[in-house]
Amino acid sequence: MSSALRSGDLLRMSSLFVRTLREDPADAEVASHKLLVRAGYIRRAAPGIYSWLPLGLRVLGKIETIVREEMNAIGGQEVHFPALLPKEPYEATGRWTEYGDGLFRLKDRKQADYLLAPTHEEMFTLLVKDLYASYKDLPLVIYQIQTKYRDEARPRAGLIRGREFVMKDSYSFDVHDEGLEAAYQKHRDAYERIFTRLGLEYVIVSAMSGAMGGSRSEEFLSPSPIGEDTFVRSSGGYAANVEAVVTPVPEAVPYDDAPAAHVEDTPDTPTIETLVACANERHARPDRPWTAADTLKNVVLALRRPDGKRELLVVGLPGDREVDLKRLEAAVAPSEAEPATEEDFKAHPELVKGYIGPQVLGPQGAQVEGDDGEKRSAVRYLLDPRVVPGTRWITGANEPGRHVFDLVAGRDFTADGTIEAAEVRAGDPAPDGSGPLELARGIEMGHIFQLGRKYADSLGLTVLDENGKQAVVTMGSYGVGVTRALAALAEANHDDRGLAWPARIAPVQVHLVATGKGAEVFEAAERLADGLVAAGVEVLYDDRPKVSPGVKFADAELLGAPLLVVVGRGLKDGVVEVRPRAGEAEQVPVDDAVTETVRRVEELLEN
Amino acid sequence: MSSALRSGDLLRMSSLFVRTLREDPADAEVASHKLLVRAGYIRRAAPGIYSWLPLGLRVLGKIETIVREEMNAIGGQEVHFPALLPKEPYEATGRWTEYGDGLFRLKDRKQADYLLAPTHEEMFTLLVKDLYASYKDLPLVIYQIQTKYRDEARPRAGLIRGREFVMKDSYSFDVHDEGLEAAYQKHRDAYERIFTRLGLEYVIVSAMSGAMGGSRSEEFLSPSPIGEDTFVRSSGGYAANVEAVVTPVPEAVPYDDAPAAHVEDTPDTPTIETLVACANERHARPDRPWTAADTLKNVVLALRRPDGKRELLVVGLPGDREVDLKRLEAAVAPSEAEPATEEDFKAHPELVKGYIGPQVLGPQGAQVEGDDGEKRSAVRYLLDPRVVPGTRWITGANEPGRHVFDLVAGRDFTADGTIEAAEVRAGDPAPDGSGPLELARGIEMGHIFQLGRKYADSLGLTVLDENGKQAVVTMGSYGVGVTRALAALAEANHDDRGLAWPARIAPVQVHLVATGKGAEVFEAAERLADGLVAAGVEVLYDDRPKVSPGVKFADAELLGAPLLVVVGRGLKDGVVEVRPRAGEAEQVPVDDAVTETVRRVEELLEN
Repeated sequence: MSSALRSGDLLRMSSLFVRTLREDPADAEVASHKLLVRAGYIRRAAPGIYSWLPLGLRVLGKIETIVREEMNAIGGQEVHFPALLPKEPYEATGRWTEYGDGLFRLKDRKQADYLLAPTHEEMFTLLVKDLYASYKDLPLVIYQIQTKYRDEARPRAGLIRGREFVMKDSYSFDVHDEGLEAAYQKHRDAYERIFTRLGLEYVIVSAMSGAMGGSRSEEFLSPSPIGEDTFVRSSGGYAANVEAVVTPVPEAVPYDDAPAAHVEDTPDTPTIETLVACANERHARPDRPWTAADTLKNVVLALRRPDGKRELLVVGLPGDREVDLKRLEAAVAPSEAEPATEEDFKAHPELVKGYIGPQVLGPQGAQVEGDDGEKRSAVRYLLDPRVVPGTRWITGANEPGRHVFDLVAGRDFTADGTIEAAEVRAGDPAPDGSGPLELARGIEMGHIFQLGRKYADSLGLTVLDENGKQAVVTMGSYGVGVTRALAALAEANHDDRGLAWPARIAPVQVHLVATGKGAEVFEAAERLADGLVAAGVEVLYDDRPKVSPGVKFADAELLGAPLLVVVGRGLKDGVVEVRPRAGEAEQVPVDDAVTETVRRVEELLEN
Repeated sequence: MSSALRSGDLLRMSSLFVRTLREDPADAEVASHKLLVRAGYIRRAAPGIYSWLPLGLRVLGKIETIVREEMNAIGGQEVHFPALLPKEPYEATGRWTEYGDGLFRLKDRKQADYLLAPTHEEMFTLLVKDLYASYKDLPLVIYQIQTKYRDEARPRAGLIRGREFVMKDSYSFDVHDEGLEAAYQKHRDAYERIFTRLGLEYVIVSAMSGAMGGSRSEEFLSPSPIGEDTFVRSSGGYAANVEAVVTPVPEAVPYDDAPAAHVEDTPDTPTIETLVACANERHARPDRPWTAADTLKNVVLALRRPDGKRELLVVGLPGDREVDLKRLEAAVAPSEAEPATEEDFKAHPELVKGYIGPQVLGPQGAQVEGDDGEKRSAVRYLLDPRVVPGTRWITGANEPGRHVFDLVAGRDFTADGTIEAAEVRAGDPAPDGSGPLELARGIEMGHIFQLGRKYADSLGLTVLDENGKQAVVTMGSYGVGVTRALAALAEANHDDRGLAWPARIAPVQVHLVATGKGAEVFEAAERLADGLVAAGVEVLYDDRPKVSPGVKFADAELLGAPLLVVVGRGLKDGVVEVRPRAGEAEQVPVDDAVTETVRRVEELLEN
């Protein structure tokens, strides 16, 4: 067919398995969740687990089709893995443990360990290992559209963060880095086409700090105030999720002329504010007053490693910044961070709460012998990248009521390293110099990731290369949240009255309403429905004989088809009404109604 | 489009994610399993759990499409339920327990109980309860095509009995019995169309003994020697699975003239054979000799109820028949049967092994008080339906080395009831008088079932009926094993060299092979491929430049496309070869190759 229309079909409101609700469900907080339930697209089966009703399933199917077409267009081959998987491959890569409580684990009747897969890197790697042996077999892109499971601590916002959900995940396999780069770029382009076709605004943000090593990773976010991801962007084109923002490192400051560090009694300075006031009073600077940014705050945390081991970490950062736990955790992953406890402080009497200074931390502090026999700091100390050599700080003197002044980084203290753990603030400079950052929230719709050789190494995926040598394969991993895309689309396309789907993914293109009591209205509507379906239009026909026009219109607006066609009072004058979901009604002669409606549907589908 | 062709596409053997194997996989016993693995359609991920490669997924998709089209054609509305479900609904119907070890159970991070659904009666019932309230909303047929989980004790035969598999399950909801009957018949007709379109031979067999109550249930079996189900059929049209066969009950025999029962010492009669010989020696009958069918064998078993309780059961049946455990278990479901143990015999010294007679069983034996305070038999005794009043038996006298003769049913003993537990044998009469039965094996492809009001009762699904009263809804449940259908199709369509798919479900319709070294061969094949795809044909083009014709042909026969087209030596004479998977090759002028191939594909699709 030459038009964007595919095959038409007819749903009847009188028999459609749906029940619209006037009230929001009690557990729903965000618009997409409220409206998808109220409009009868989904129903909750358990926390974070939903059943799909006919209209919801139709939208989901359309999203899947667009994703599938674009994956096929870049040469992706569709496969399908089980959701229920044995433990062993996930143990080989360490993820059986790393996933912690987020993994649904179970035993079969023979007490063998299984899991419900949260993602399938291991299985894809093993299948390629099973089938392929030569560089000639590569490159390869395989994908699946499949149900995944994650035991989220806080399932929320309906489909936005669920425990059972549909994802497209694909994986690329190449012998050389350039191949991975090409596969990554092809996916990036395919994702742009997918989200464009879905009609979903998106921002591509860097998802991994360059500091962590060469691998590239980007996220596709749908900007939304209810999004769980915070991202930054500059007017000059920089965009990153907040975990990936790299702090521009200032140049080191010469400190030959810096005064010597000295400790002072600083009574009544329990807060940074009072400490700054004290400094300005005692040591006023001619050029500018002391601020919180001149103080060095040392925050004590505990890291829990996936193997259960716990270690203390102190983060030193300018006193005007807070530690951002999500940035910190991204930096220490797969370890998780938690607040230090009273027991931690008891075990480390050198840490004097409120007066902690670098003099007892990291290289300056006590040393212990690690698992590997190497000496290391008893309390690990990592600095914000802004604390460069030569900078002068006011900080704790490790005694109650005393602070140290003119403590110079690089002269008076060093650390075990740096860490990106400080909050990112609007107005901070973009790392690439492209201007100040602004912050926004988004829903993560897609993620593309250069895995490199990590999984192939763990699982032994090698092929013979051009020189007849075994080469470890390099991989990419690429995901689209299919159910989440549906929720993001609902989030971005609704108003007070209900959903307002883009035509390409609407469950039907036309919502046809017959109002009135005369048989002629229903007969005309029936003929119109038949004509539209024959032309390839998907029609939901509200044929309920005893339901008021008000209820029918309210249902139509709640369900959210892009075009409403009303056969009613105008019929005696030979017209029907055609009205876009969010536009003006137009009277169309009944004889032109099919042609005109088809024209509009085609227009909507092509936009 | 007017033809049966839909949209064409092109796979290239050089890049297709597949690897054919010349050897059968070690764990495979049946042809479908061996060939689907060898041809690269599926790969084992765990016992009874398979990954789908591109060719396998294409076949699965085609089967799903046929099932979906036929379900939509009877007004079915597609929905989709989670696989991961909370315990509560399954507890309400008792199935959380009844499923025993066959259910995958797990806990989430909050220690709440979940299961992987083996079937979804509960969820469908609850969803309808959630949405609907009036008889006006009914009738309703909703269905899903979804992944199901059963922790089979013995997963076997590849996809035939798996632990993760795809099923279509649908459910009908009606207020009145006639509605259920109509929904059942519509499904029965749809299933006939589905299996016909799939090209799968099928037999519809009764799946439930009429003796168990009115509900109707039938299975669609694909006759196959590797099938797990045994079924019977008569030349007169009766067909049933062996569990459902009802024994024709003989008329009662007058016993006024029967001699009194008497006990005899019967030394050296450890077997029925020796006992029969002894009877013929001592009490020869003028008309016909005693046979094993004149002895009453009493078989001791233990039943384990879903709640874990265990009780003894003795089955009395003619000595020429064995107990068929599958028939017995079907009769006592959801209890399971197991052999009696030495402990059981110790606990019941009245049961003298080898010499058990009815005199100590059932109503004749000891009585105990049941859970409900009612008196009942200490050892429950159920008789084969052939043991009608007046029949005379030789059986054990409950003393070692002694038997009783002329023990008359109804005069000398009775039982707690009858049971269909005796084996069915070829030649047995059909219950409907339609002739002797023959036995065969089949693969269960579909099951249709009048559930009645069981689930609606348990879960409180009522609607207001025409008279404004709450009426419990009556339901039907209907399943098609989608992955199993694929295996059955492979089982029914293969030869020594590989798979031989019916065109409608083959992964591609044409396997195009280019043989030879000249560029002109590959160019001609490429043009032919393009022409076929443009005409709507699905083509797998073996474009591998350095692979021998022998390997290419072997792969083509293993993969099993219905039509092989070869561009090779004939090209210089202006011909290509067209060869059905199991037919004769024909030379076709190269200029007619597209037209002729398309014609043949259409013919195959329409057959």
